Amino acid sequence: MPVGTQGSVKALCPEELRQVGTEVILSNTYHLYLRPGTGVIERFGGLHEFMGWDGPILTDSGGFQVYSLAKLRKISEEGVVFQSHLDGSRHFIGPEESMDIQRALGSDIVMAFDECVTYPAEYEYVLKSVHLTTRWARRCVDHLGSREQALFGIVQGGVYKDLREMSVKGLVQMDFDGFALGGLAVGEDRETRLDVVRETKKMLPPDRPVYLMGVGAPEDLVEAVSLGVDMFDCVMPTRNARNGTLFTTCGRMTIKNARYVDDKRPVDDQCDCYACTHFSRAYLRHLFMARELLAYRLNTIHNLRYYMCLMEGMRKAIEAENMDAFRKMFYETQTGHMVD
Amino acid sequence: MPVGTQGSVKALCPEELRQVGTEVILSNTYHLYLRPGTGVIERFGGLHEFMGWDGPILTDSGGFQVYSLAKLRKISEEGVVFQSHLDGSRHFIGPEESMDIQRALGSDIVMAFDECVTYPAEYEYVLKSVHLTTRWARRCVDHLGSREQALFGIVQGGVYKDLREMSVKGLVQMDFDGFALGGLAVGEDRETRLDVVRETKKMLPPDRPVYLMGVGAPEDLVEAVSLGVDMFDCVMPTRNARNGTLFTTCGRMTIKNARYVDDKRPVDDQCDCYACTHFSRAYLRHLFMARELLAYRLNTIHNLRYYMCLMEGMRKAIEAENMDAFRKMFYETQTGHMVD
Repeated sequence: MPVGTQGSVKALCPEELRQVGTEVILSNTYHLYLRPGTGVIERFGGLHEFMGWDGPILTDSGGFQVYSLAKLRKISEEGVVFQSHLDGSRHFIGPEESMDIQRALGSDIVMAFDECVTYPAEYEYVLKSVHLTTRWARRCVDHLGSREQALFGIVQGGVYKDLREMSVKGLVQMDFDGFALGGLAVGEDRETRLDVVRETKKMLPPDRPVYLMGVGAPEDLVEAVSLGVDMFDCVMPTRNARNGTLFTTCGRMTIKNARYVDDKRPVDDQCDCYACTHFSRAYLRHLFMARELLAYRLNTIHNLRYYMCLMEGMRKAIEAENMDAFRKMFYETQTGHMVD
Repeated sequence: MPVGTQGSVKALCPEELRQVGTEVILSNTYHLYLRPGTGVIERFGGLHEFMGWDGPILTDSGGFQVYSLAKLRKISEEGVVFQSHLDGSRHFIGPEESMDIQRALGSDIVMAFDECVTYPAEYEYVLKSVHLTTRWARRCVDHLGSREQALFGIVQGGVYKDLREMSVKGLVQMDFDGFALGGLAVGEDRETRLDVVRETKKMLPPDRPVYLMGVGAPEDLVEAVSLGVDMFDCVMPTRNARNGTLFTTCGRMTIKNARYVDDKRPVDDQCDCYACTHFSRAYLRHLFMARELLAYRLNTIHNLRYYMCLMEGMRKAIEAENMDAFRKMFYETQTGHMVD
């Protein structure tokens, strides 16, 4: 899922999102609640109408951004009091408020309100936090009531296997349409993260989609899909695009590199995106060096198309029952930074 | 002509330029000479290939930017020595160099290298400058030689009618495909500028296009077209778009204004551009307030479409021989900043 934090996947219009193969976009409850405000979007009939995107939208619960962006947070049983990172104004969001906002936004997939614990965290703290997240999950299910939107629960528990298990056991008793793995990609190393994914995935009901939140790099997607994960969101393809890092079937490319100054080839000759079929590396380099707005857009189109093709390749490999071969091939072609 | 200073009309791709009705774009010789460098574009076979625009391109001579952007300029009979505004490196451009660069860029319309005098300027200085610009014009014609690109001469002379006449008399003896009015929109007031346009236009051969450089606001275009001017370039539609000022058939609109927070209407219900047919004022306001990259693009699409429709309306009015009625109607509908 490309990330459209403020009701726009940065630099792209809805048609371009379609063209790169987007199925679902993620948008951020915290940001939209603060600006333009839930009421504005509600009066438009929801985020789909407001931003002109008729495909599915997943909204996060607002929790993660409250912890990572807002100031002066105070977490209680009720929820979280925080100050806006925009103007310092004081706000409160708890499970019920999160459900109300996400219902007003009209997203297709609503995320339960959770506490996202950063890494490292003491066992005792994570234990208490898992209990809180489980109680909040129950309040989300109860408050959302009769279901017009899908609702996903979020498994917490840090890097502690028994706490992940405790979290799963609490959540699977409730009526969730899917399960997310939360509290990952928050500072732990890659092996630890994949271990948690591997162990937790085994505990979850096999008939529900599993969503690994905030992950990640192409190699992380390949590993997590190999472990059974179905859904991802990450700013990496879009943010890296704006920083001039492009993903290709041969590895990463730093477009500002002087070696591309005269390079007439497309960024990736395996890619069918608008940027690769219309423009050279040299032109993309020039646009980036000159800080032209078109650079951010073309780079974003390319990176998202790369990610969508990667996911499509994995879906096909799974259907053909050769995901292991796909994974092997992926590592053979990903030779790190391009050298030619 | 939308302005694509660095080989890109800011935020737009070539298809969008077409969609808004662009016929010719302007690109800046000074900028492209410095970055990515003339050689890079030449090795691509010219700017059309490099930037993916297959319509006509007019390049300026580099003169105006040398005077307005570069540092430590020194003007001599030969040309201009200057320091790059990017890295302070030392360069020389004279009439021959300007022709060589514009030939390498492969533009369809080449501008003669001139001295652009700012306002106010003493009569004696402008007199000398007109003589210099005339000698430089001759060197441009001689150096460009057999003509594969159109070449326009630039009339100078400041606000002095007799010097404009002297400049015209010098230029019309040479083989120019069109004539530009230079040295305007550099600080003089609007009435003075229109007086110079009126008087100078009368002196020029009626069978050649007349191009008023760097102008302007919609009302300036209407006045200048009424006086017989054929071509314009200006950053106003694109730069104002990025600053949040939109041009509409009812006047200018400041999109960040709070009155638009809930406004479901398009920016201009008379406009058929992508922004007006897909998005509300409220969404454009939100994108602008949130500094989303899509804001700059949608605003630019709208403003350029407004300008193209204005020019198209004037072309039709001229053909129907009712330009006076068009002009009257224009002022009746342009009621200043929108109030509803």
